[in-house]
Amino acid sequence: MEKIMLASDYQEGAHPAIMKRLVETNLLSNAGYGTDEFSESARNRIRTACACPNASVYFLVGGTQTNATVIDALLAPYQGILAAESGHISVHEAGAIEFGGHKVLALPHHYGKISARQLEEACENWLSDGNRDHMVMPGMVYISQPTEYGTLYSRAELTAISEICRKFNLKLYVDGARLAYALSCPANDVTLPDLARLCSAFYIGGTKCGALFGEAVVLPDPGLIPHFFTIIKQHGALLAKGFVAGLQFDTLFTDDLYFHIGDSAIRAADKLREAFTEHGYPLAFDSPTNQIFLTVTKEQQDHLDSFAVSSFWEKPDEDHTIIRFATSWATTEEKISQLIEQL
Amino acid sequence: MEKIMLASDYQEGAHPAIMKRLVETNLLSNAGYGTDEFSESARNRIRTACACPNASVYFLVGGTQTNATVIDALLAPYQGILAAESGHISVHEAGAIEFGGHKVLALPHHYGKISARQLEEACENWLSDGNRDHMVMPGMVYISQPTEYGTLYSRAELTAISEICRKFNLKLYVDGARLAYALSCPANDVTLPDLARLCSAFYIGGTKCGALFGEAVVLPDPGLIPHFFTIIKQHGALLAKGFVAGLQFDTLFTDDLYFHIGDSAIRAADKLREAFTEHGYPLAFDSPTNQIFLTVTKEQQDHLDSFAVSSFWEKPDEDHTIIRFATSWATTEEKISQLIEQL
Amino acid sequence: MEKIMLASDYQEGAHPAIMKRLVETNLLSNAGYGTDEFSESARNRIRTACACPNASVYFLVGGTQTNATVIDALLAPYQGILAAESGHISVHEAGAIEFGGHKVLALPHHYGKISARQLEEACENWLSDGNRDHMVMPGMVYISQPTEYGTLYSRAELTAISEICRKFNLKLYVDGARLAYALSCPANDVTLPDLARLCSAFYIGGTKCGALFGEAVVLPDPGLIPHFFTIIKQHGALLAKGFVAGLQFDTLFTDDLYFHIGDSAIRAADKLREAFTEHGYPLAFDSPTNQIFLTVTKEQQDHLDSFAVSSFWEKPDEDHTIIRFATSWATTEEKISQLIEQL
Amino acid sequence: MEKIMLASDYQEGAHPAIMKRLVETNLLSNAGYGTDEFSESARNRIRTACACPNASVYFLVGGTQTNATVIDALLAPYQGILAAESGHISVHEAGAIEFGGHKVLALPHHYGKISARQLEEACENWLSDGNRDHMVMPGMVYISQPTEYGTLYSRAELTAISEICRKFNLKLYVDGARLAYALSCPANDVTLPDLARLCSAFYIGGTKCGALFGEAVVLPDPGLIPHFFTIIKQHGALLAKGFVAGLQFDTLFTDDLYFHIGDSAIRAADKLREAFTEHGYPLAFDSPTNQIFLTVTKEQQDHLDSFAVSSFWEKPDEDHTIIRFATSWATTEEKISQLIEQL
Repeated sequence: MEKIMLASDYQEGAHPAIMKRLVETNLLSNAGYGTDEFSESARNRIRTACACPNASVYFLVGGTQTNATVIDALLAPYQGILAAESGHISVHEAGAIEFGGHKVLALPHHYGKISARQLEEACENWLSDGNRDHMVMPGMVYISQPTEYGTLYSRAELTAISEICRKFNLKLYVDGARLAYALSCPANDVTLPDLARLCSAFYIGGTKCGALFGEAVVLPDPGLIPHFFTIIKQHGALLAKGFVAGLQFDTLFTDDLYFHIGDSAIRAADKLREAFTEHGYPLAFDSPTNQIFLTVTKEQQDHLDSFAVSSFWEKPDEDHTIIRFATSWATTEEKISQLIEQL
Repeated sequence: MEKIMLASDYQEGAHPAIMKRLVETNLLSNAGYGTDEFSESARNRIRTACACPNASVYFLVGGTQTNATVIDALLAPYQGILAAESGHISVHEAGAIEFGGHKVLALPHHYGKISARQLEEACENWLSDGNRDHMVMPGMVYISQPTEYGTLYSRAELTAISEICRKFNLKLYVDGARLAYALSCPANDVTLPDLARLCSAFYIGGTKCGALFGEAVVLPDPGLIPHFFTIIKQHGALLAKGFVAGLQFDTLFTDDLYFHIGDSAIRAADKLREAFTEHGYPLAFDSPTNQIFLTVTKEQQDHLDSFAVSSFWEKPDEDHTIIRFATSWATTEEKISQLIEQL
Repeated sequence: MEKIMLASDYQEGAHPAIMKRLVETNLLSNAGYGTDEFSESARNRIRTACACPNASVYFLVGGTQTNATVIDALLAPYQGILAAESGHISVHEAGAIEFGGHKVLALPHHYGKISARQLEEACENWLSDGNRDHMVMPGMVYISQPTEYGTLYSRAELTAISEICRKFNLKLYVDGARLAYALSCPANDVTLPDLARLCSAFYIGGTKCGALFGEAVVLPDPGLIPHFFTIIKQHGALLAKGFVAGLQFDTLFTDDLYFHIGDSAIRAADKLREAFTEHGYPLAFDSPTNQIFLTVTKEQQDHLDSFAVSSFWEKPDEDHTIIRFATSWATTEEKISQLIEQL
Repeated sequence: MEKIMLASDYQEGAHPAIMKRLVETNLLSNAGYGTDEFSESARNRIRTACACPNASVYFLVGGTQTNATVIDALLAPYQGILAAESGHISVHEAGAIEFGGHKVLALPHHYGKISARQLEEACENWLSDGNRDHMVMPGMVYISQPTEYGTLYSRAELTAISEICRKFNLKLYVDGARLAYALSCPANDVTLPDLARLCSAFYIGGTKCGALFGEAVVLPDPGLIPHFFTIIKQHGALLAKGFVAGLQFDTLFTDDLYFHIGDSAIRAADKLREAFTEHGYPLAFDSPTNQIFLTVTKEQQDHLDSFAVSSFWEKPDEDHTIIRFATSWATTEEKISQLIEQL
């Protein structure tokens, strides 16, 4: 029997609504590099969804690429970016930020999150250090929503971070690789208009949220990055067939699809969390979105591995491992039931 | 009436065979980052097509990204890359090669091509220069097949270039963004096995040759680039859903599709070249593949613009412009007939 | 007998006035990183000499370092720098500009010089190119005074270039590695105040003009490069003992030393040019400063090599070589007489 | 009265023996770029002192420049460097390592030191991480001897670190900015031949150890970095007047000067440590070389500031500050006595 694959939220293709439109429009001729009508329509729908009619919107391909390109575009060459030491840019992008010449100024995290207070301290420490001109100047803050631990920043927390950023003249950038799973989560109170109001830049994840690929960068201040098109090209991140990305986001932002595409994933994750707990698989930490982290013994892991595919997260001690299951828009109720049956 | 769009070969989606398989497999669960079965199958088919069973094959997203990543991976930090001054990396990649720290050592071109003799001279000049240790060392040769001018290197020419590369210890890299249109061209005598035999690295273009996106990098010597996976990630070029690229190339290399996908484009281009010439629109230069370059007067251009979309190529003098039409696998006979009727 | 060394203008130590002050002040304790009193005095003297009381002045170590640091600081990441293809940054800096991520946009030169007209054309070509957003944007012009060929820009030429730069919003940067030899040359009409008035940035060469090492960067607009201190540090160009550079420039700008330190070198070069010509060693081209370029036959070169050390410049044809002699502030009349005697 | 300056060990010029030779040889003509006889002699003396007759030796200008150049030359583009989070490259080089594209993989330090065990763990963690191909690969270890805290690695500790490096195929690089003060310290048991035997690369500090400027890079394996000359040039670190650096190191390695140039600094530092302790200024931590770190109250700091110049180190709590005094080869007994009198 085939194993139940729940190792990640980028295992399947695209939401059927996207596939349908890709097929329907497949042989139409479009202008290149995102100057087509689908992309323009998608940009307008995103502006509306963000309540930010003047925002600049760009479609890139993947998360690491988007982070590296936006961060490099927004930082001065001598500036670094403050981020949780667990942040994607800190650990899992193979040094893409450093490839662009910038230091990631890593801060201790609390289940993937950093606080306004930590950021304030980091800035104050830099400012009060007599050697600060020999140091990397903090120029920006990176957070992810949801975080790599599946946790969420509240609107109050994000507002506090945004205020610190304004106080210290830092850009604020939010990595929304899994943003749909935040938007579908009852515990979440941060909206797209909140992000547009509080951030310098953020991206709305497509790859993990229903698209074949694609991330939509939103710059609420349209003049924030002059020549960003050329910067995207220089970073190798410009799609010739930009219309393929544009059409996907146009679909995701039609009939509020993006706001509900994560609903079933959240329900499935809640169900899994409950079932794991009941069956004696303790949650490693509380995490309300589409990722489930379990602290398992060797025996428990072997049992789970016999019928399901999860992914390694970390090794807290000799006898235990933290593993991760991830649900997505494509996870069926049947899959979840099958897994629970075998616990 | 809508204009006849022939501005580029990346205007439409994907070959119907690709769309069919994307739809059929859409909800299957796959491993990430190109470790899936479709990608593995595609790699094997490409190895077979190249008669190079040990080759390493990687799937990236677009041409500039592929060039920047491969070139950076193959050059030592202090080396530069010899290329035609008309080469894509020389002019139309927004400095992506320099972003990686490397100088493009540009040579005069002959309708997009450079010769073994030019390369030999460049290397001898560097070697015999008393200040060579203060100069950028040539480490690699970049050519495109077909070239940006639609012209082709013959097997004899490519062999001569390859020999010079071996003589001076240069890597040889071929940009095959439009490779299908070379393979479908009667004038062409360079095969995939030839490329695998003569080059250090080359890529088989997908974006312009039937895929939604994607380029397949072939490294005939599988050990040529240690840790290339990590380098791809560092360049922001690693697809989470690598299976989407893999599946497309798997389809392109099933039933010899890639070898014939350009056939109709070449026939269409030949027909257009004949029609344009007959109607007094002189070819700017001879070019046997899917691009047609015309030298037109202002009046001619206005007439063409009234019913067709071409692209600007260059301005040889005050009174003339060179424009480009491009056919593709998606160009219908009907489209060509409509255009010819209105000449 | 020892050969007469005239291979370069960086063969000897420092002007005796500099050595004297270095010895006198050797054991004084100074603040670090250029915050000492000698450096402050030197900055003020340079501001006065440039008639630019608000200029920012920084001391770096060498020419390539200075070029790479200033150019990287002044260009946006996606911009390139227009320069003569014979310019030092184009050929003899081992790709240091590309290491910083920028393309050198090389233009054909006329004995080391480029013209306002060429620059205007380059900018117009970029602006009128439909693909300009895929290309490297010209952001700056680099010229050297005197040029690598020993030639000089006139004030009229420099003014014309400066006007083009303002018209197209380009920075103008002048490499003054040998500036003292321009200032001492009767043919020169460009003063330090002219440079301060016409340029965005320039550097006053020390290494080749009387110092052990050191180049003084002048930014007429003091706010042009925020955090330049940190940028210098990031480029590895910040001297811990900045006072050693400061003291040298303080001496060079005391009693007009810098304005006359090249006088004897120019006289010596004139004498050599006359003697070579009389003895049948033709000048390769006319060059009024401290470098002498001869086109010699194999026999002539052998004869010269038997008693003098020159340097290789280039090989115009099979039978001839262009070689270079360079005089400096340290070249004695005796040395010149000895050389002429043996012609 | 002038304050007693003990803020750093780079406040004064050069050791009198160096100044003497610079003056004596000032007007001799030398070959450029380190190809002169003084540099060759210095290289040979250093090879002898290191008991490493085949070592490659290069002279660069300053510490940050040397670190950035050597590290960039030794790492593959996708590799990072393990270092103490207090290491100079981690905090006080303004991101110079990241400018070259590399991540500093910072480890917690114990008074400036890291241990073989920490390095082993870091490597094992990377190796055992299922996502390691998405992470920065450790390629090198950076330590400083003495450390930024003035502490020393013992030969046993360095040997253990070297063994871990060999085990995990890491380069080992030692920053010897203050190496003379280690060599003069009774507590030290690491010799130059030990460094040559245990390291991939290290540099012998000149700037802080008796020279006007200059650091000597030693590569025990002469073939370790092909084309290092060009790499140095590309990093803007090549001195035209290389003979000025060569002559200084030639002097430092004549008559064992380098081995004793720090003796008086160590004696002075010991005396200061004793006096401070006696007068109720507690040492922040134990540190046997030429730096003295005190934890002082506001009142104590004000008193010290009234007659001496120290430098800020860090702020452990609201009421205390850690300050640093540094002695050097140039510190006179008189200066120390004056300071002690006023405690």
